[in-house]
Amino acid sequence: MRPGVFTVFITGGTGLIGRAAIARLLRQHPDVRIAALVRSGERWRSLVTTLGPLVARVVPVRGDITCDGLALGRGAHHWLERHSRAVVHLAADTVFSRSRDAARAVNVDGTRHLLEAVRSLGSGYRPRLVFSSSIAVFGPPFPEAIGDDHLAAPLTSYGTQKAIAELLVSDYTRRGFLDGISIRLPTICVRPGEPNKAASGFFSSIIREPLSGHEAVLPVPEDVRHWFASPRAAVGFLVHAATLDQDALGGRRALTMPGVSATVGEMIESLRRIAGAEAVELIRRVPDEATMRMVASWPGRFHTRRAQELGFEAETDFDEIIRAHVEDELNGVVGAVAA
Amino acid sequence: MRPGVFTVFITGGTGLIGRAAIARLLRQHPDVRIAALVRSGERWRSLVTTLGPLVARVVPVRGDITCDGLALGRGAHHWLERHSRAVVHLAADTVFSRSRDAARAVNVDGTRHLLEAVRSLGSGYRPRLVFSSSIAVFGPPFPEAIGDDHLAAPLTSYGTQKAIAELLVSDYTRRGFLDGISIRLPTICVRPGEPNKAASGFFSSIIREPLSGHEAVLPVPEDVRHWFASPRAAVGFLVHAATLDQDALGGRRALTMPGVSATVGEMIESLRRIAGAEAVELIRRVPDEATMRMVASWPGRFHTRRAQELGFEAETDFDEIIRAHVEDELNGVVGAVAA
Repeated sequence: MRPGVFTVFITGGTGLIGRAAIARLLRQHPDVRIAALVRSGERWRSLVTTLGPLVARVVPVRGDITCDGLALGRGAHHWLERHSRAVVHLAADTVFSRSRDAARAVNVDGTRHLLEAVRSLGSGYRPRLVFSSSIAVFGPPFPEAIGDDHLAAPLTSYGTQKAIAELLVSDYTRRGFLDGISIRLPTICVRPGEPNKAASGFFSSIIREPLSGHEAVLPVPEDVRHWFASPRAAVGFLVHAATLDQDALGGRRALTMPGVSATVGEMIESLRRIAGAEAVELIRRVPDEATMRMVASWPGRFHTRRAQELGFEAETDFDEIIRAHVEDELNGVVGAVAA
Repeated sequence: MRPGVFTVFITGGTGLIGRAAIARLLRQHPDVRIAALVRSGERWRSLVTTLGPLVARVVPVRGDITCDGLALGRGAHHWLERHSRAVVHLAADTVFSRSRDAARAVNVDGTRHLLEAVRSLGSGYRPRLVFSSSIAVFGPPFPEAIGDDHLAAPLTSYGTQKAIAELLVSDYTRRGFLDGISIRLPTICVRPGEPNKAASGFFSSIIREPLSGHEAVLPVPEDVRHWFASPRAAVGFLVHAATLDQDALGGRRALTMPGVSATVGEMIESLRRIAGAEAVELIRRVPDEATMRMVASWPGRFHTRRAQELGFEAETDFDEIIRAHVEDELNGVVGAVAA
């Protein structure tokens, strides 16, 4: 291990947040190297495209998180060894995309395989491990604002799987095999790219689509309130968690991340301020009972004092979330509608 | 299925609480039959000895909860089928007895195997499933009394495994595969039989041993407070949970059971009232740092309003807990010391 070089082992590095987190780590920290667990050449190429010349500091590690031992390729254990000072575990399967059992193989078994792989390296190795959890671990009834000590009582299989993984991370930490922290991400908004099938997808599309002149469908009433952070803020959480002083963390290793509490109506008013009435007119209201039922069980507001005291920072209002999207994804150009 | 016959499928039925629960179910409910999952002939014989003639209403089902599909013997699926109206899942491995990984195979994987076995029987089958969880799911810091909405933040691997199993039971319930309830048992006191290796074992031995004229070792100070229920009360919780109306339960399926909050000093005063000063003199104070450290992280008092509203009942003071032991284990004879 060369002094000063800090290798971060990352799972799920080819996803939306993963690619952005790798890019940010490499740009902000010249001494950082990345070892990225990748399942296929195709996924690796998507990372190469995103990173450009920065990819020179990234090593692809062939492996599969759903397999015991991660099915690491030859020599790959090397990268999870003593010179990886942090492990960032983003690999996740959102339940809507496949079956719950396939999702469990990634979200629960995959996490256990990763923790066991770290543990198997022996007592001298105790890296920081950052697990990307989710506010999906919470289920109603909710207080007006959900505090740091609120119980994890998920109402989805995805939330259940994240809650189980959090328990594993805390237990392996307590047993001294690693130095874990589970960060519960707010709903990420505005997600770039194509609309996805997640029930929460409309939160992003009602902002993203109008900003580039396209229609978007709103399936819920304007008084629905939810908890958001930009992709930029989420990446900030991960990088901060990977480098945070462990003494500050104490025994409870699952932390809800700060975010912006906004109603759909407030989101639309932000859009109006930033992109004008023409953008807002592109939102088509098509109430959908199934989505409304689901969204009714989602949390709307948190008090995240612990995370804030530890230095985690999110946007402070929804305007800022939209501006982050405009800067990071639209080259700062607002009002493509008018073009 | 004969009308009126109610079969209960039970795992862990050969343990302390399991044997007592089977005996109580058979005595109180003439229409109940038991199908008991047993791993070996030896375990089955221990049940035969306990039950006497009642065993005629018990069928041993050969199987192993640590195996996918439970490794059920030929024809055994029959017993987990539509005519088992309740499943009582007591099988557990306390971590102190073996390795944590062996314990996990029972406590986490075993629970999942059982839930999957029920699920595999198809959509028409949705039995009540009672899972025996533990107050070990809670870890400090604690409020003065721990309420029904307190978060599960365990500080032991055993507690972690129980918390994970609770999450699974809730998720399978929500998905409609079964009608689950996790009951968090207090520390069971007075446990009959030989002292065991559990760190909590002294709570029972400082009462049990003096009651039969033997010395017992007290490793902690008298101001240590903890949460107790008798074996008799624990059996009552299980039987009540197996027959409780599901409409009363709602979405949150993990319930802390009522119990008695007592300090070691209060326990000793109860012993003095019931068995006299000679009994108390048999308690030898041998402070043990390791036990003290462990016990310091255990909960001392709960508010269990939900369970009480649902009709779960425990003893109301520690005298009653000792009297239950004297009645159930010592044929009502107090003061063997004097004999």
